[in-house]
Amino acid sequence: MRATLKIAEFIMAAKPPAAARQRAATALCDTVGVILAGASEAAAKIIRRTVVAESHGNCRVLGTAVRASAADAALANGVAAHAHDYDDMCFVSMAHPSCALVPSIVAAGEITGASGSAVLDAYIAGFEVECCLGLVMNPRHYHERGWHCTSSIGTLGAAAAAARLLGLDAPSIVHTLGIAASLACGLKENMGSMVKPLHAGMAARNGVMAARLAKAGFIASEQSLDGPQGYLAAMDSQKPPSALADAATDLGSRWEILDSGIAVKLYPSCAATHPPLDALLGLKRRHNIAADDIAGIDVEADSMTPRLLIHPRPSTPLEAKFSMPFCAAAAIVFGHPTLETFHMEKIGDPRIQKLLPLVTLRANRDFDPAAHLSQANVTVRLKDGRTVQERADGARGYPGRLTDDELSTKFLACAERSLTHTAALQALDVLRAIETRSDISDLTQLCSTVSESQGVLERDFIERKS
Amino acid sequence: MRATLKIAEFIMAAKPPAAARQRAATALCDTVGVILAGASEAAAKIIRRTVVAESHGNCRVLGTAVRASAADAALANGVAAHAHDYDDMCFVSMAHPSCALVPSIVAAGEITGASGSAVLDAYIAGFEVECCLGLVMNPRHYHERGWHCTSSIGTLGAAAAAARLLGLDAPSIVHTLGIAASLACGLKENMGSMVKPLHAGMAARNGVMAARLAKAGFIASEQSLDGPQGYLAAMDSQKPPSALADAATDLGSRWEILDSGIAVKLYPSCAATHPPLDALLGLKRRHNIAADDIAGIDVEADSMTPRLLIHPRPSTPLEAKFSMPFCAAAAIVFGHPTLETFHMEKIGDPRIQKLLPLVTLRANRDFDPAAHLSQANVTVRLKDGRTVQERADGARGYPGRLTDDELSTKFLACAERSLTHTAALQALDVLRAIETRSDISDLTQLCSTVSESQGVLERDFIERKS
Repeated sequence: MRATLKIAEFIMAAKPPAAARQRAATALCDTVGVILAGASEAAAKIIRRTVVAESHGNCRVLGTAVRASAADAALANGVAAHAHDYDDMCFVSMAHPSCALVPSIVAAGEITGASGSAVLDAYIAGFEVECCLGLVMNPRHYHERGWHCTSSIGTLGAAAAAARLLGLDAPSIVHTLGIAASLACGLKENMGSMVKPLHAGMAARNGVMAARLAKAGFIASEQSLDGPQGYLAAMDSQKPPSALADAATDLGSRWEILDSGIAVKLYPSCAATHPPLDALLGLKRRHNIAADDIAGIDVEADSMTPRLLIHPRPSTPLEAKFSMPFCAAAAIVFGHPTLETFHMEKIGDPRIQKLLPLVTLRANRDFDPAAHLSQANVTVRLKDGRTVQERADGARGYPGRLTDDELSTKFLACAERSLTHTAALQALDVLRAIETRSDISDLTQLCSTVSESQGVLERDFIERKS
Repeated sequence: MRATLKIAEFIMAAKPPAAARQRAATALCDTVGVILAGASEAAAKIIRRTVVAESHGNCRVLGTAVRASAADAALANGVAAHAHDYDDMCFVSMAHPSCALVPSIVAAGEITGASGSAVLDAYIAGFEVECCLGLVMNPRHYHERGWHCTSSIGTLGAAAAAARLLGLDAPSIVHTLGIAASLACGLKENMGSMVKPLHAGMAARNGVMAARLAKAGFIASEQSLDGPQGYLAAMDSQKPPSALADAATDLGSRWEILDSGIAVKLYPSCAATHPPLDALLGLKRRHNIAADDIAGIDVEADSMTPRLLIHPRPSTPLEAKFSMPFCAAAAIVFGHPTLETFHMEKIGDPRIQKLLPLVTLRANRDFDPAAHLSQANVTVRLKDGRTVQERADGARGYPGRLTDDELSTKFLACAERSLTHTAALQALDVLRAIETRSDISDLTQLCSTVSESQGVLERDFIERKS
């Protein structure tokens, strides 16, 4: 059987185990939080005022009172989800999976009146498809060729999730995947700019659009993924296109969401900074290190890391998220990085500027055989002549380590950027019991009842549309 | 100077010569025609009813009474432009240039109230940018890697044209190109399906969106095109990214629209079928060949052709456009291929089905050093033992060969699929004098005044929106 059809049949019929749904529910909770935090960021605002303002529909743009078509709501929510680079990671697809999947399931779930369990199953179907592609394509696709998997692979995941919720049959899902494969894009060169969150939004938007077009009768190639001029060939997959059929055979027999899992971010910066930050914060705490004590900070990581942290001297908050020197300096000066850390005044702080040149980052190829972005070694050289050192294997938010308290604390801090404290608590309650809700709209409605002072009401925007 | 900035400065300041504007005016005329012909095709209808129905705005969807946002009107017009595969070709960008450029300049021209000469200059800026990229990237990008340049390169052209009409400064055009570079996509595997015209629509849509986002302050990388993880690297350019700066140096000193030109299609099938069709129709006429006389038709072409004509036994009209056997058989049975040739009943015609297995296509690498899709050799073996043969070098619609009469005849046959004969003649008059019109809306208004019987009014669609 052709790989594309095999994948389509999995999407249509997948029956995820309960443990997988729990993982998906965690991802949904975390992602709704970061959407609510990101809604007021510049990239999200420009998207709402430029694109979404011209859209009709009843799908909710979370953290605002704005409504739009399913595809445009998915666009807006996707940009907000990734605006802080605080959303989760998958080390198999090498994508931020949820910033495209969650906007897709929320929008497709709203237009179909889907239940909480249906959106979780759709999330899992999309997540597994992304991992199946990632196993075949990565690391060359991401690491050497420079595709931003969040979008290039995420478009297929978002399309799969939307197709599942729209109840498409397998042939229509083949067309959905074919449309989505031709819309997949996103360049790593745009990391540290507003285009990075746009990648997530476009993946979500194009995924929803692909499923809706296929439902309306739009026709694509039947071998869009593995044909000789298809997605894997164009995107320069690590393995030959024929490997996809083998990878697809595993779908449904094991679950990547359980095996490799989803890494939740506890710092709003590139995932590559997290193991070094854990190590550095540990050293700072144990040795009581202050900024003035430091002669140098030397970070070693795997060879993927320097291709991600491309802004050694950041000039914007978005660049600062992709800067090992800034993140390390900020951890020393301000402690645990939060959303407040990535602001212009923090970048300009003289203590930070003094520390930036003292931080080095180098690749250690000995770390490459381990999981990507898991190994780090941090050495702090102190002015008094001492040298202290710590090794990290993964980060605190990595699969199986995250605590319920950490998730709740992060959610509330994020959600309160758009909602009142009470509404944020209510949303958290709904999210904790999402599998039992009969309609996802309970959640989206709650996340759109924003107070004028706190949320992003955009009165002028709404007036213009009505 | 960085390549991206150099290109941006060209887009902002390009002053095309009069001869270039004439070529652009021909392309505009031809493309408005094929949009009016394509508006009633299935792919265009699904796009209007699925995506454009959810859009607000005053930009016209040609051949219909529908209006939408600039980006969504560009999407709809782009899909219509490419729906018949009857729109023009460029052998340097290896794109169908106008199916993305014209919808972009029409939409951006409408929202800015641009003059005819301003939209022609924007067209040329976009066209030259596409050629500049094509010179660096092709043929590997298109031929070996399987990217559909109409979209993968066309997105950048459409963005350039829109940015020019929006009057952006060079730094904002750099951001426009950076956004567009991250949205560029489109797989050749989808040739012969509805996704192929969608590629044109998405290129136009994303180009317009990129320019509008940049105007609103959206930020991208400053080296999106030639950075180490940028567009050229991801898309597997033929030459190294550093070659772009050299290619960009030529911009404005010579004009590819004059040097290599634009090939207008006189048959609504893949451009690779045109030289063989010219040769075969010549043989048929001179030797008075009927279907029953034929023992075999052997077509030789360059090695790119078999990777384009991927449907030897087509089952749909769209596949038939990418089928050398079908096109050859149809030329014998029905004569000069027209829009009417590519219908299901023609594919099922017993005379066609009998001829299909008698047609062979093979690559002759001796043809490769010449211009792509220019060389063909057609041998017809007759049942009476005779063998006749004809060689083609290019096709009738190729640059410098097209006559005014051929252009007008094609335009009217296309336009009358949406407009009355009188309106089509009026539109042709406006297009012939486009350089003197003070507002492009003269044209778009005329192309949207459709009669209920003839045009695509979509009453239900409009009622739903109001």
